[in-house]
Amino acid sequence: MSGEDAPAQQQQNAVDQKQETKPTEEPKAESPTKTESAPAAAEGGAAPAGAPEKVPEEDTFSYRSLVLTGYGGYDKVKLQVKKGKPALKAGEVQVQVKACGLNFADLMARQGLYERLPSPPVTPGMECSGVVEAVGEEVTDRKVGDKVMVLNRFGLWQEVVVVPAGHTFLMPEGMTFEEAAALPVNYITAYMMLFDFGNLRPNQSVLIHAAAGGVGIAATQLCKTVKDVTVFGTASASKHETISAGGVTHTIDYRTKDYVEEVRKISPKGLDVILDPLGGSDTHKAYNLLKPMGKLITYGAANMLAGQRKNLIAVAKNWYHQFSIHTLSLIQGNKSVCGFHLGYLDGEMELISQAMNTILDLYKQEKIKPRIDSTWHLEQVGDAMRKMQERNNIGKVILTTEPMPEEEKKEEAKKEEKKEEKKKEDKKKDDKKKDDGKKEEKKDDKKKEEPKKEEKKEEEKKEEPKKEEK
Amino acid sequence: MSGEDAPAQQQQNAVDQKQETKPTEEPKAESPTKTESAPAAAEGGAAPAGAPEKVPEEDTFSYRSLVLTGYGGYDKVKLQVKKGKPALKAGEVQVQVKACGLNFADLMARQGLYERLPSPPVTPGMECSGVVEAVGEEVTDRKVGDKVMVLNRFGLWQEVVVVPAGHTFLMPEGMTFEEAAALPVNYITAYMMLFDFGNLRPNQSVLIHAAAGGVGIAATQLCKTVKDVTVFGTASASKHETISAGGVTHTIDYRTKDYVEEVRKISPKGLDVILDPLGGSDTHKAYNLLKPMGKLITYGAANMLAGQRKNLIAVAKNWYHQFSIHTLSLIQGNKSVCGFHLGYLDGEMELISQAMNTILDLYKQEKIKPRIDSTWHLEQVGDAMRKMQERNNIGKVILTTEPMPEEEKKEEAKKEEKKEEKKKEDKKKDDKKKDDGKKEEKKDDKKKEEPKKEEKKEEEKKEEPKKEEK
Repeated sequence: MSGEDAPAQQQQNAVDQKQETKPTEEPKAESPTKTESAPAAAEGGAAPAGAPEKVPEEDTFSYRSLVLTGYGGYDKVKLQVKKGKPALKAGEVQVQVKACGLNFADLMARQGLYERLPSPPVTPGMECSGVVEAVGEEVTDRKVGDKVMVLNRFGLWQEVVVVPAGHTFLMPEGMTFEEAAALPVNYITAYMMLFDFGNLRPNQSVLIHAAAGGVGIAATQLCKTVKDVTVFGTASASKHETISAGGVTHTIDYRTKDYVEEVRKISPKGLDVILDPLGGSDTHKAYNLLKPMGKLITYGAANMLAGQRKNLIAVAKNWYHQFSIHTLSLIQGNKSVCGFHLGYLDGEMELISQAMNTILDLYKQEKIKPRIDSTWHLEQVGDAMRKMQERNNIGKVILTTEPMPEEEKKEEAKKEEKKEEKKKEDKKKDDKKKDDGKKEEKKDDKKKEEPKKEEKKEEEKKEEPKKEEK
Repeated sequence: MSGEDAPAQQQQNAVDQKQETKPTEEPKAESPTKTESAPAAAEGGAAPAGAPEKVPEEDTFSYRSLVLTGYGGYDKVKLQVKKGKPALKAGEVQVQVKACGLNFADLMARQGLYERLPSPPVTPGMECSGVVEAVGEEVTDRKVGDKVMVLNRFGLWQEVVVVPAGHTFLMPEGMTFEEAAALPVNYITAYMMLFDFGNLRPNQSVLIHAAAGGVGIAATQLCKTVKDVTVFGTASASKHETISAGGVTHTIDYRTKDYVEEVRKISPKGLDVILDPLGGSDTHKAYNLLKPMGKLITYGAANMLAGQRKNLIAVAKNWYHQFSIHTLSLIQGNKSVCGFHLGYLDGEMELISQAMNTILDLYKQEKIKPRIDSTWHLEQVGDAMRKMQERNNIGKVILTTEPMPEEEKKEEAKKEEKKEEKKKEDKKKDDKKKDDGKKEEKKDDKKKEEPKKEEKKEEEKKEEPKKEEK
């Protein structure tokens, strides 16, 4: 039942490749066998946390890996141990991972809302940093010992990854592994949106939603590399001081104020560039806020993420309000609407490398610097995801592959036990209610409103998360 | 009945201002009084073709002006004489016009398909060149005698125009008035599409439809100012030699070949920038031809123009096939869709001036040069429009305010007489057919297919125009 039985594999290379592992089917969240799928911390405790490079025999080689075992809540990502050395083909490098970055796409993926991640079981993770520990044939520009950043469609949340050498970028002098894991996705995304689609120039104005998030902070820093750019940034009030210091000209608390009105007060004609990670009705608002020759770049559907598990109402609402634009409107408004997602750009490594080179130059010139919100052990991936999803972060949420100290592990285990008990209690209550109502669960798509309500209740009881997301 | 009765006015300044003229209602094209609305050449012959600046008294001041008298065919634009000196307000200049440019929007406007032109009677014309002959108060950067290009929403097809000084641009040394009248609309349009929305960079690829048209030639020349840009250009085969010499890398005869296939043969991954003046289903094709990070810039609906008069089928078809795009598709494709039309950008003179300055620098460096297809007298505006609409031009179609020599006038008059006779004959035949069919014409929008067929027949009989447009 445990992930330790799973054979080693090269998930991270497998673009569209079906996984060869045949782990026992993960129990559904609602099934009575649930307790067997222990949360990450508990399982991690059972796994040998030793460094894999110390194992000499290929067949006894093992490494820890985070595996998405099924779509759902935070506990669906489990720490497992993979055995066997991953194969290294020509043009590839093997990297000992030090730190991994969390991205919104990982949260979407966990809920089954990100089609670029193969079906579970699968290791998520689009970016990490580490040290090259083996190079395949034909690799000329990487050598053992190189410190690198790695960008991949998925599969990087584990201690050892094998990727094409072209997916790695040398870390500049002085960059920490945390910074290196925080940089690729957020900065390439912000860079390509602002400077390729957005064509940002001096004296222009930009709206950055979630300005305290990973992309938001990267975008703010990149805006400041252009002369006299005015940055409007939305975030909850508690984060305003930080984002102001980071370069946001006008902070807007979207929870208490209408951001459209706030922008119009200062810039009545509208804005030159708007970055839209929200989707749905916010895309409409953004479109109307554009100046002539303005560019709206939409890069996500964060509005779809409401709660820990897939919220069908939020998804449907987002679809319903999805922005659709006629060319005649674009022509009459002299406007541009662009879509961006790095996850769909994996065939364009040349473009990405060009952007990365410019970004690393800016880093060396100290014009940009990733801001780390917090670093978590692999065992704590659930809490790390929660922090990001509930928008309690300022900057990047990072996972480290450093072994967790034994003491911390014990504490984690206790916390997890508590959580589990609470969950069971909630479950019992829910079951009772369900029995009372004589409602029977059938297929996912037939549930409609029912599961949403239950999930919400469960979540609220657990930790009373501060929901910042709109 | 004649336009000579129309009081002088400042149509060119009147943004959204209702005209004060109250000329007799123009007869409908189908009405029996049609012969009274003589075509431009005949009327022009009756008008005093003297230079207006020689008349000393303000109240006897008169100048020739082209007036769109109603929506319809080429003969709806008539040469009239306006009396009285146009008022000159602070910040404005009066320009003695030497040459005017024809644009696609003027053709659309004649058919009632361009909402930026006020209702007839109105003087069309978005660009011209000439000499400043008076400056209003507060004008510091223009003086009498300056040779200028003029850009305005409408009203420039006449001998005298009054416009805000900010709508004029000084002509560089050595530029002819024809070049100056050919430059503003086409080059600003091409420039803003390629370099603002398109963000064109070295080694990229561009598709230019109607590469022998005004915008097409301007865009080709501007592409060549960027290193190693590959230009795909569509045009009928007879124009290929010229556009190749002008800088088109790959010429495509869209009449005999599928341009999508032709592009894919050479550039299987697609294109970086596509300029789309066609609309309808061609916009869909363009979208699918985009590379990741590609930009589609749509700037017209030439597909709507089928025949001399409004073709309801073509308009409906264009609407039906009009491109509408969901953000999710944009995100997954990493694509950009932009709309551009200079006619809707008249509030953004600062942006336009910036573009114009760069364009004029390129002209001075001999990197760009407007190509004049042909120059026509005001009396010949119908033929000039026909040449452009039937896509028989290579480069810009220009009107000159130079008086027409008496001999030419006589010839024109004869030609026009012949045309009129033919028209009457066609009309008789049509009327006979209609009577036979006992069909009664009602309102425009109830006619549907009927008028289209008639128009087509009429047109084909007249001159057997080579219809290049798809």
